[in-house]
Amino acid sequence: MVGQIYLNMLAEHPWFRVAAVSGNTTVGKRLIEAYGGKGEVPPKLRDLEVLPSDPKKFDADLIFSCLPTEAAKTVEPEFARAGFPVVSDASAHRYHDDVPLLVPEVNPEHLELIELQRSKRGWDGFIVTTPNCTTMTFVPPLKPLLDTQGVRHLDVVTMQSVSGAGYGGVPSMAILGNVIPYIRGEEEKVSAEPRKIMGKLVNGRVEPAPFKVDATCTRVPTLVGHLASVTVELAKEFDLEEVRDALESFRGLPQRLELPTAPRQPVIVMNEPDRPQPRLDAEAGDVKGMPVFVGRLRRGTRERTLRFVSLSNNLVRGAAGVAILTAELLHATGRV
Amino acid sequence: MVGQIYLNMLAEHPWFRVAAVSGNTTVGKRLIEAYGGKGEVPPKLRDLEVLPSDPKKFDADLIFSCLPTEAAKTVEPEFARAGFPVVSDASAHRYHDDVPLLVPEVNPEHLELIELQRSKRGWDGFIVTTPNCTTMTFVPPLKPLLDTQGVRHLDVVTMQSVSGAGYGGVPSMAILGNVIPYIRGEEEKVSAEPRKIMGKLVNGRVEPAPFKVDATCTRVPTLVGHLASVTVELAKEFDLEEVRDALESFRGLPQRLELPTAPRQPVIVMNEPDRPQPRLDAEAGDVKGMPVFVGRLRRGTRERTLRFVSLSNNLVRGAAGVAILTAELLHATGRV
Amino acid sequence: MVGQIYLNMLAEHPWFRVAAVSGNTTVGKRLIEAYGGKGEVPPKLRDLEVLPSDPKKFDADLIFSCLPTEAAKTVEPEFARAGFPVVSDASAHRYHDDVPLLVPEVNPEHLELIELQRSKRGWDGFIVTTPNCTTMTFVPPLKPLLDTQGVRHLDVVTMQSVSGAGYGGVPSMAILGNVIPYIRGEEEKVSAEPRKIMGKLVNGRVEPAPFKVDATCTRVPTLVGHLASVTVELAKEFDLEEVRDALESFRGLPQRLELPTAPRQPVIVMNEPDRPQPRLDAEAGDVKGMPVFVGRLRRGTRERTLRFVSLSNNLVRGAAGVAILTAELLHATGRV
Amino acid sequence: MVGQIYLNMLAEHPWFRVAAVSGNTTVGKRLIEAYGGKGEVPPKLRDLEVLPSDPKKFDADLIFSCLPTEAAKTVEPEFARAGFPVVSDASAHRYHDDVPLLVPEVNPEHLELIELQRSKRGWDGFIVTTPNCTTMTFVPPLKPLLDTQGVRHLDVVTMQSVSGAGYGGVPSMAILGNVIPYIRGEEEKVSAEPRKIMGKLVNGRVEPAPFKVDATCTRVPTLVGHLASVTVELAKEFDLEEVRDALESFRGLPQRLELPTAPRQPVIVMNEPDRPQPRLDAEAGDVKGMPVFVGRLRRGTRERTLRFVSLSNNLVRGAAGVAILTAELLHATGRV
Repeated sequence: MVGQIYLNMLAEHPWFRVAAVSGNTTVGKRLIEAYGGKGEVPPKLRDLEVLPSDPKKFDADLIFSCLPTEAAKTVEPEFARAGFPVVSDASAHRYHDDVPLLVPEVNPEHLELIELQRSKRGWDGFIVTTPNCTTMTFVPPLKPLLDTQGVRHLDVVTMQSVSGAGYGGVPSMAILGNVIPYIRGEEEKVSAEPRKIMGKLVNGRVEPAPFKVDATCTRVPTLVGHLASVTVELAKEFDLEEVRDALESFRGLPQRLELPTAPRQPVIVMNEPDRPQPRLDAEAGDVKGMPVFVGRLRRGTRERTLRFVSLSNNLVRGAAGVAILTAELLHATGRV
Repeated sequence: MVGQIYLNMLAEHPWFRVAAVSGNTTVGKRLIEAYGGKGEVPPKLRDLEVLPSDPKKFDADLIFSCLPTEAAKTVEPEFARAGFPVVSDASAHRYHDDVPLLVPEVNPEHLELIELQRSKRGWDGFIVTTPNCTTMTFVPPLKPLLDTQGVRHLDVVTMQSVSGAGYGGVPSMAILGNVIPYIRGEEEKVSAEPRKIMGKLVNGRVEPAPFKVDATCTRVPTLVGHLASVTVELAKEFDLEEVRDALESFRGLPQRLELPTAPRQPVIVMNEPDRPQPRLDAEAGDVKGMPVFVGRLRRGTRERTLRFVSLSNNLVRGAAGVAILTAELLHATGRV
Repeated sequence: MVGQIYLNMLAEHPWFRVAAVSGNTTVGKRLIEAYGGKGEVPPKLRDLEVLPSDPKKFDADLIFSCLPTEAAKTVEPEFARAGFPVVSDASAHRYHDDVPLLVPEVNPEHLELIELQRSKRGWDGFIVTTPNCTTMTFVPPLKPLLDTQGVRHLDVVTMQSVSGAGYGGVPSMAILGNVIPYIRGEEEKVSAEPRKIMGKLVNGRVEPAPFKVDATCTRVPTLVGHLASVTVELAKEFDLEEVRDALESFRGLPQRLELPTAPRQPVIVMNEPDRPQPRLDAEAGDVKGMPVFVGRLRRGTRERTLRFVSLSNNLVRGAAGVAILTAELLHATGRV
Repeated sequence: MVGQIYLNMLAEHPWFRVAAVSGNTTVGKRLIEAYGGKGEVPPKLRDLEVLPSDPKKFDADLIFSCLPTEAAKTVEPEFARAGFPVVSDASAHRYHDDVPLLVPEVNPEHLELIELQRSKRGWDGFIVTTPNCTTMTFVPPLKPLLDTQGVRHLDVVTMQSVSGAGYGGVPSMAILGNVIPYIRGEEEKVSAEPRKIMGKLVNGRVEPAPFKVDATCTRVPTLVGHLASVTVELAKEFDLEEVRDALESFRGLPQRLELPTAPRQPVIVMNEPDRPQPRLDAEAGDVKGMPVFVGRLRRGTRERTLRFVSLSNNLVRGAAGVAILTAELLHATGRV
């Protein structure tokens, strides 16, 4: 699923060009054969030969990795050691102290970890990771809240689309007309990642942000787009209109640098009472699938508590799009 | 939807017999014609003539009402005034001080309000109401928690099935492959009702239980069964196994009286990590659709905080079933 | 549903401009209010005031009508009498001898009926109709077959999307996880319309094409795109590759005139064994939603029998798109 | 999917008892562990140990096999050679001349092939097969038509549920809101099997019935129940009411023998215009899931042509149920 979004986004990219593709079960096939009808491949990439995951076979300036966790553990370091910058959607290295876990609008300064990583590991290349697609549903709207009010606690209940588990990940027998109130391993990621992403870089170390996260992750029969119901306890009392303005006016470094894949607004607040909705909004935005949509902004009954729902396209903003945006940021800041 | 469940449950009932049916848009039709293919009608009730909602036309000992709110406001009092006990699923009179809002396992003592209601209003009959189907998703498991630990705060995120809106209530264009993160009027009910149901009867008045409720209600493409992700702040610290035992061993008056529609256990705790699921569990139980299923019982990160998911059949436990159980309780306690 | 597609297609149209909109239940509202969240309205049309369906209120060169049948019976003639050309998706006048039932690529010569219609009815304006959205699923691929081999008999089994019944037309309770093997009135239309569309204009009369049609129309839980399994008995034996070529190389007058809404190919043959699929292909094409996609082209066991599946976007090619293409043809041939 | 239906049907069977279960990937596990949450297992069978597929380990009077085709090719003959009667849902031996392909109501006389099979192969046991679940959708209603009018040609368009492909067979990404107009290998089976099942046993050989079958098989987002739109050309002209009576009054040997799994009527004709529907009717019947439901009985435009839709529960009538009914017939006729 994610590989295909990469191909579509990169096929028309103003800065980047797909130089090579890799995938262990389809080595030697043409890309169109490798897909075998499970999706569309941009015409100009159809005849690309699938290579093995071997750095010596690659002639490229940067590697995008969306490998399964186990493969990523060994393959990504091989590429980094061989001198390649690697931008990875895999969870294998996300939690290492010297590996940035990056949302370009939120913590671009964490890219400073790269130098530490290189010197510590003796690599010519490096690894930068992107968060779990579910984490992405609520981290961008949290950032301006963190900056203005401080965040004390987070409670997230997600309704995640089947594409988040990969093309064959959720059998139709399991999910048609159903909700599955559990996704293995997901709540752990969703609880840990926001604290690292929103942590402060102090003396070459990320100090995790000082709030805790409770999460309940569920699977629902939607195709694309993870929806979350979010309750945030802020550190200070707030004015609801000021919060709305802070979300709407939030801009990050990618916006200031006008990176090609940066949406004009990372966070868009919807005022209709019943939005955002996955089917209607997951593909929306000036850069399709890149804004996070927030709705139902309101107070909770507890003090300093804000409630909202938010929606992020798990394949674009939550995977291929954020990785491409990260690569653009690496290039624009002279790191690639 | 709900009317049909009544018919099916009552057609085989050991104590009750369907004496008459009413429905304003189909007066004079046979019941099978009135349904027009939108559901099944028990064979022995097919030829029943649909009556107008006029007390004079009725020869019955008790009225079940699942009228729309506006109709219920005027029709139900007419029947009560004419001497009928009315058990109503409508919201029209739920919040009146002298009208019990009843979950038979939770607050049977609130039936004492009936005498007050009769004397105050000068009625021969009376009205007893049942809660909103979504409230029912989490009130039964809260009751033993309230009794043993005390409840301080409640946060509920629901994933509700389309049958909750009635047969034609949710167009397929709206919900296929989608989630709608808002249901008009629902969160207000879900926030108010638990406090009344779990309130104490003091000097002929219900003092609302002293906790607040935050709710986010969403619609998902499931047919039957409302699922909720629940976070409860208790008043005292707790042992998780003791809580599990308290839920599993909870029994109410209907269980002690062995009422026909009372499930052996009002609350069933599931230990599989990914249950309950609406499609698999909404119709389960010794009395089908009557138990509330609880799963994923665990601690939150905050002190004294318990998290779980719970599932209730919105048509049975959340509407027709709870009303029939209420009528059985009225009969068993000599009120009908 | 269809009105919204009109607005989107016309908002960017190179020749046409939306001058006015009408709709009886929302007269006086702004267009964005009239939609009430059931769809998106192009920004520049949001503030348009909804007018009553009264010719005197309209200042326009052509009327697109997607009225319900009963309303169309009276309203469309009023507009035609008042001098407006009316292009209608409604079935009200489709079967009248002097009203063209038009698929611009198939029977543009039937527009000659307009003069007859005007003189017979004494109208300054006229009515041209478009077919039922299901008819459109298979008529374009039939045309080159009719021209080269002759058609003897047609058997069609459809799997139609819920949007074909309008936004609220199919309750989710009816169709989630289900198939409904009947659509009221549909098979009659699907059986009659192809014979008129593919009939010959002789002395100012359309002689129906001399084949019969058997149809079974079903509703399935898809959002957009009607799929049909089609069996055609041809008049002459055929070579399968020649048939494929005939379908692929078929071009009509709209293609020769390069009308803005004409797809480059009215019929596209897919060679993958499992295509076309509604969710993947209904929005495809150079003019999105305008080509009809044909797949699984093969022989039947009977002599001179061809089998295939075909897919048409019921909202675009089957309604708004074909009407706009018809209006373009009227304009390009000097009739408007 | 099918294995679980076997367990549920056999757990309560009046004649049979589950003596052992086998499954290569879960050997040594308890049955409840082998299912791993993908379904329910009857309480009294939960602790059964999964055996390897080795005849020496089995102590049983009859084997039900729902193995994958490749495994069935070698495993089923091993059991037959070792003396076991094998009733198989697999396609591996369906088309062998000396193996009955049985629908107990339709061709019980084909069981005579067993003696031939035994003597030819030198086996103590034997193999009897059941048809593909899609074939079952229309063969039972064809039988009385064949007997009274003769069948000349058959055209079938199916809409098949996802359970037909096994629990993980259809990814939700493939089918949510979609139709896939092709199922690999299905049309070949659906075309060949009816001719063998309805063939005449002459001198120890089945002469295939002298009609041809055209089939288009599609996958739709339903859970259980295969629906087919069927067009039959009969050999003689017919009266529609006589056909209806012939279908309704059709009884086979299982009905005459009052076998436990035999429904009172193998074919039930529904008169509502929009039935049968998979979600409403697939589990219906006195023996749940065993009758085939026929609806929309009507004439086609061609001579001697009958059209109808029919629905069969693919897991029960199409697999486990028909195999159990076959075993009952073997027992009742003294073959087991």
